[in-house]
Amino acid sequence: MSYKYKTIRDPIHGDIKLEGLFLDLIEAPEIQRLHNIKQLGFAHLVFPGAHHTRLEHSLGTYHMAARVADALELEKSDKEIICCAAFLHDIGHGPFSHTLESILRESLNVDHVDLTEKLILGEHAIFDENEKDTLDSLSVFDILNKHGIDTRRVANIISGKIKDNLFFHQLISSSVDVDQLDYLVRDAYYTGVAYGIIDIERFIQTLCTFDKKLMVRKKGVSVVENILMARSLMYSSVYYHKTVRIAELMLSKAIELLKDADPFEFFKMTDGEIINYLKKIGGYQFEIATRLKYRHLFKQSYFASIADLTSSQKDIVKKLDKPIVRREKEKEFEDELNIPRGHLIIDVPYTELHLSEPRIDQTDTLILDYNGVKKLEDFTPMSDAIRSRVIPDWMIMIIVDEKYRDIVNENAEKILFK
Amino acid sequence: MSYKYKTIRDPIHGDIKLEGLFLDLIEAPEIQRLHNIKQLGFAHLVFPGAHHTRLEHSLGTYHMAARVADALELEKSDKEIICCAAFLHDIGHGPFSHTLESILRESLNVDHVDLTEKLILGEHAIFDENEKDTLDSLSVFDILNKHGIDTRRVANIISGKIKDNLFFHQLISSSVDVDQLDYLVRDAYYTGVAYGIIDIERFIQTLCTFDKKLMVRKKGVSVVENILMARSLMYSSVYYHKTVRIAELMLSKAIELLKDADPFEFFKMTDGEIINYLKKIGGYQFEIATRLKYRHLFKQSYFASIADLTSSQKDIVKKLDKPIVRREKEKEFEDELNIPRGHLIIDVPYTELHLSEPRIDQTDTLILDYNGVKKLEDFTPMSDAIRSRVIPDWMIMIIVDEKYRDIVNENAEKILFK
Amino acid sequence: MSYKYKTIRDPIHGDIKLEGLFLDLIEAPEIQRLHNIKQLGFAHLVFPGAHHTRLEHSLGTYHMAARVADALELEKSDKEIICCAAFLHDIGHGPFSHTLESILRESLNVDHVDLTEKLILGEHAIFDENEKDTLDSLSVFDILNKHGIDTRRVANIISGKIKDNLFFHQLISSSVDVDQLDYLVRDAYYTGVAYGIIDIERFIQTLCTFDKKLMVRKKGVSVVENILMARSLMYSSVYYHKTVRIAELMLSKAIELLKDADPFEFFKMTDGEIINYLKKIGGYQFEIATRLKYRHLFKQSYFASIADLTSSQKDIVKKLDKPIVRREKEKEFEDELNIPRGHLIIDVPYTELHLSEPRIDQTDTLILDYNGVKKLEDFTPMSDAIRSRVIPDWMIMIIVDEKYRDIVNENAEKILFK
Amino acid sequence: MSYKYKTIRDPIHGDIKLEGLFLDLIEAPEIQRLHNIKQLGFAHLVFPGAHHTRLEHSLGTYHMAARVADALELEKSDKEIICCAAFLHDIGHGPFSHTLESILRESLNVDHVDLTEKLILGEHAIFDENEKDTLDSLSVFDILNKHGIDTRRVANIISGKIKDNLFFHQLISSSVDVDQLDYLVRDAYYTGVAYGIIDIERFIQTLCTFDKKLMVRKKGVSVVENILMARSLMYSSVYYHKTVRIAELMLSKAIELLKDADPFEFFKMTDGEIINYLKKIGGYQFEIATRLKYRHLFKQSYFASIADLTSSQKDIVKKLDKPIVRREKEKEFEDELNIPRGHLIIDVPYTELHLSEPRIDQTDTLILDYNGVKKLEDFTPMSDAIRSRVIPDWMIMIIVDEKYRDIVNENAEKILFK
Repeated sequence: MSYKYKTIRDPIHGDIKLEGLFLDLIEAPEIQRLHNIKQLGFAHLVFPGAHHTRLEHSLGTYHMAARVADALELEKSDKEIICCAAFLHDIGHGPFSHTLESILRESLNVDHVDLTEKLILGEHAIFDENEKDTLDSLSVFDILNKHGIDTRRVANIISGKIKDNLFFHQLISSSVDVDQLDYLVRDAYYTGVAYGIIDIERFIQTLCTFDKKLMVRKKGVSVVENILMARSLMYSSVYYHKTVRIAELMLSKAIELLKDADPFEFFKMTDGEIINYLKKIGGYQFEIATRLKYRHLFKQSYFASIADLTSSQKDIVKKLDKPIVRREKEKEFEDELNIPRGHLIIDVPYTELHLSEPRIDQTDTLILDYNGVKKLEDFTPMSDAIRSRVIPDWMIMIIVDEKYRDIVNENAEKILFK
Repeated sequence: MSYKYKTIRDPIHGDIKLEGLFLDLIEAPEIQRLHNIKQLGFAHLVFPGAHHTRLEHSLGTYHMAARVADALELEKSDKEIICCAAFLHDIGHGPFSHTLESILRESLNVDHVDLTEKLILGEHAIFDENEKDTLDSLSVFDILNKHGIDTRRVANIISGKIKDNLFFHQLISSSVDVDQLDYLVRDAYYTGVAYGIIDIERFIQTLCTFDKKLMVRKKGVSVVENILMARSLMYSSVYYHKTVRIAELMLSKAIELLKDADPFEFFKMTDGEIINYLKKIGGYQFEIATRLKYRHLFKQSYFASIADLTSSQKDIVKKLDKPIVRREKEKEFEDELNIPRGHLIIDVPYTELHLSEPRIDQTDTLILDYNGVKKLEDFTPMSDAIRSRVIPDWMIMIIVDEKYRDIVNENAEKILFK
Repeated sequence: MSYKYKTIRDPIHGDIKLEGLFLDLIEAPEIQRLHNIKQLGFAHLVFPGAHHTRLEHSLGTYHMAARVADALELEKSDKEIICCAAFLHDIGHGPFSHTLESILRESLNVDHVDLTEKLILGEHAIFDENEKDTLDSLSVFDILNKHGIDTRRVANIISGKIKDNLFFHQLISSSVDVDQLDYLVRDAYYTGVAYGIIDIERFIQTLCTFDKKLMVRKKGVSVVENILMARSLMYSSVYYHKTVRIAELMLSKAIELLKDADPFEFFKMTDGEIINYLKKIGGYQFEIATRLKYRHLFKQSYFASIADLTSSQKDIVKKLDKPIVRREKEKEFEDELNIPRGHLIIDVPYTELHLSEPRIDQTDTLILDYNGVKKLEDFTPMSDAIRSRVIPDWMIMIIVDEKYRDIVNENAEKILFK
Repeated sequence: MSYKYKTIRDPIHGDIKLEGLFLDLIEAPEIQRLHNIKQLGFAHLVFPGAHHTRLEHSLGTYHMAARVADALELEKSDKEIICCAAFLHDIGHGPFSHTLESILRESLNVDHVDLTEKLILGEHAIFDENEKDTLDSLSVFDILNKHGIDTRRVANIISGKIKDNLFFHQLISSSVDVDQLDYLVRDAYYTGVAYGIIDIERFIQTLCTFDKKLMVRKKGVSVVENILMARSLMYSSVYYHKTVRIAELMLSKAIELLKDADPFEFFKMTDGEIINYLKKIGGYQFEIATRLKYRHLFKQSYFASIADLTSSQKDIVKKLDKPIVRREKEKEFEDELNIPRGHLIIDVPYTELHLSEPRIDQTDTLILDYNGVKKLEDFTPMSDAIRSRVIPDWMIMIIVDEKYRDIVNENAEKILFK
């Protein structure tokens, strides 16, 4: 029996309909692998409902793109390629989503967007040799070609290199993109933290294009204010929740202390596979994998917000932003306090957050009024205020194996600021 | 810093509060392992939101038990032990929850309730040797003893061996238990299938005890009708969804065809670990693990509902209920049609369903009226009707690697009923 | 400024879009009057959220009709006329919706469907003389004519007199109509009684037409079972809630005891107008209006379910079904027990319920299977069981001013069954 | 039969439990009258679901007060009196809630808080003479005395005159009161505008008292930011929606143009009664009542936001803030353009909004940190930003009978700023 279409039941958007090209794409290994990549990394250790995956989010983003394309009355072929980009925009995510991105960025100077591009262009494969021998699935690259889709154009829409219609890219990644329409509501639903609930219907009705850019009509100012606020609150309450952050830093440290490892290999793994991989290695890696499995986490020791530090202390902290400097300092702590390697981690999150999530600073939506194009800040003070909200609330935090908590806390300022 | 209590945000019940004993239990490895056991096995392959775990469900069941205990105005110590039983009632679940139970039952004559009992009584351990050397977590057995809880009594409440207060057991496992209060609503929430939505508040208000048995007051008849119907619809629409069933049968077959394997070993694994374990073995097991990872499932070939079969055919199908007979028949198919071992599976689900879920037949709630104890069927015809609803809608189904679908379908009746 | 379309925010269905003809219809006095007619009569006296109106329900039914018409891929003109019928199907409702229908039926042998028909055909007007002088709104009849819609055909779709395409009528009024898609979910939402929550999306996907009749595909059996059950539970828990019923009977009695009143006049009134009208009359009518305003209701005195009565008693009760006999008996009670006129009401609800809501007996949905048309009962025992559920749970109830409760209860059987 | 307690089903908070004193209060005419006062005045003309009443809101506020009192572990008697104040805080509301308050404030220099106080202290009665003869209900004042509650203290908690425990008042009316916990969520639910959804559970957990003032713990900063934003968005999107405002101004004008009317009389009326009262008067009042019944509203003509006006124009507009000046200007328009009396209304909303809803400027929550009491603005820029959000978006608007729309628009600036 062959289907003309298929509907998938999604708790957020109801029934999501797939036809044609998308019936093939849903079977691609790059997409199916996302079943095994949690959307919010280790957030389930704090919010036990947060086991949702990049697969659901990809379907939801696809669905939002289709609805916006209909609302904007786009051509069928434009709608198709935007939906492709929306569906595929996250296939380059490694295990536990954003968790390992700083490692990847540091060692290879790439991020999940680059990997997504390589997969779409067929320059990289998800299957390993054994898997390829077992299954005869077509890759995303194969499927796009089979359906006559321009893979370079799909990649450019995602990366922003598209020149002719900037709003194709803005729909996928900007301060008013469809990505966040899905993830804010989805993450709110699965964590139970209601901040992310936004008015999707109203937002879609107020989007428009003008001069090949994506804008919002004036009547949509409130809904944009609401989305910006929702995003900001989800960052401070969920995405940068301290305990979630601790688990992520533990996994990153376990990878960082591996010798001779190929970062590309990790990035093809699923959440389960990387945990098993670490367990097999033994030693420190075994310990971290076991701790994560049983939620036996390191604890916060020293902690300082911006207001807690003098300006000279802030200058010192800012230098720790560089991984190499930070690791030197970690080593100093370990040596002075007799802490075994990897059992103390210094977190200086600001730069990393703003690199991995540039949208957090983006509140610069264009508003189309009856007398021309204006900026969001011409209508509301919320735009500036949200941009200057501090996330997360620590400028520096040191996390350690629980048994070293007190000794680190007592000596922290001395070692940090000497 | 030590907490007096902790609240956990649950999308279903809001904030769940843990104190005392339960703050320790939440850290136990038997409980934390449940973070890695999906509540609905492979249901996420059909309902992409269904990644919720036994951990959430255990917390929710604990919370429901606490609310019912308050509503029934139980003594503090009775409430505590019932909440213990509720929290721990599922710790014996193997990977993917019910998926492998028929294997376990067949080879060892135990089920997840027996394993739960062994864990509570300290006769079995979740940690392997290496894990034990790494983490110093207390087991559930240790924690219960530390807090002076009678482990035998907790186990008896779960298994039904408790003699003095039958309703302690009925609260955990009966046609009106707190287990289903949680799972119906939770499974509805994560799958997006609304059938499971029930009126928890009203149900709790109408529960009562009489003669040491759990009953429902007459004004609660509607809410019980609603729960029975919700359960029945969730079975036919979600739990026994055909595609979910196919994935479960594939995993079971991969385990069944292992030689010299110790079932107890599998049962300590997490979902991720068993998939990795199979991948490492190679051959057929590698193939199945890879297929499940990428949702490359076997397909339904021959299919017959009760109405489709003659009475002599039904007699033959009933014999296939025995695993040994069924495997013989599978081999016959494979040999006659040149299908490689393990690529054809015969499913005859009726007996297994009713063994693993005895509640499906239980609609025999007692109703307390102003003039005495009656049965639910004295008030409504729904009770009998729900009991006689047929689930699932196939009496027999043969699933195969897609390339053998047609040949099996053509020859099925001939080989089955010769 | 003239709009091409307008969206109305509905808490149940999200945004409802109106264009063309429907932008005019929403302004018609027959529709705007429904803003002032509560959907559930006096249900708000028990469920304080239940103030929703026939206007919302009409919009929702229109929206459901549009979605089903799209799913069935109907012609544009067929969709338009069905949406008309859906939007207008309740304009003939009197104040407090169903509350006064038994009076109307008894004295004039018409019901709200007949009045709806008269309004659509322009045989009856909503405006009184003064209103007409003040506002220049077009009536529904005028608007339909202006847009070239066949009013007779709209009326026939609603009443069932349509001959060529029976399913046009079935969409508006049958066991699987769009009316209940809206009211079950809406009434559940505003009362907070979750029973009415049904899976609208799935239901719409499984509807089909065959042989010009409306049917459900086999995969929709579960969703139909769920709808039937939801409807039955809403009847027993909300629509026939005892206290709601008492308030309705009080209003009916106040109208019944009016002399020389023209029932047609009442039917044009809003909820607020009829209460004010009764207040102005004084005496018994003032008392009832004041009691309803402040929820100072009569109380249940004698009460008997089917199981409580002997078969000869049942025969006597059945005779009370006739209004004239029942009123004779009420007078007998009042005379014997010295109760002032109108302060005792006998309720024998069975016949009235089944006259005003024939769908309650309708579970006879047709199911389209791969091998032909079957009946719902061929697939599930729920169909018969739901039909035989007893609603409401009293066969007879006597309600009285609180001060006569005891004396009536003591003498009830004697006077009733002498 | 006498109940020890009663539960009422509320769609927002689930079951609300009433016992003792509150079982009597729910029967009081001051409370039952609220069944007939819509929470949001004429908002249902834009959001058709918004028919909810002050009764529901009073129950919800009572319920929130009880939960906060439990969370703060208050004494039983303190909890009782705070719950009283919460339950009764809105009994002084006139028909359509805030709609007529500016009239009352202008002519009598009182508002709904003053009327609430008078009712609680027994200085004013809800019943008229005829009602009193018919029903023997106890008033709120009688009931409070019967239960030994200090009515003066209840009134002082509501009005803020309480001296010993300021936080009793802050719980009822402040930037972090329980009133808004209920109304934000309730108004969001019934309008379908999701902005008002806030995290009630988390908010309650973070409230605390210190130095007899109500504060929020530092971990509650996000939830307070969310509440402030929700409130601000609900004001701009719902409460000050332009069309809702137009209907309210029409009713106010109909009352204003009455001669020799006693404002106190209006304030005892229900929504239905005031509409009927106006209809009976005839003339302009009949016209307005009929227009409101059938949603035949005046239309916006001239409209200017702050940005649209020069500073000298703004000075002129500010003077129109005074009712007497504004009416003079309205008369000028009517005379010059031949518009009949009452068919043109000038709206200059700023002052009225901030008088009737002082909380809109209140973002000055105190935050209790580990090192002392701070202000919300020490933690977030949102506090200032929300305070400076402009609501509504017109500084002046002229509304007229549709047929004068163009002529007024053409001449508006000339007449306004001459």
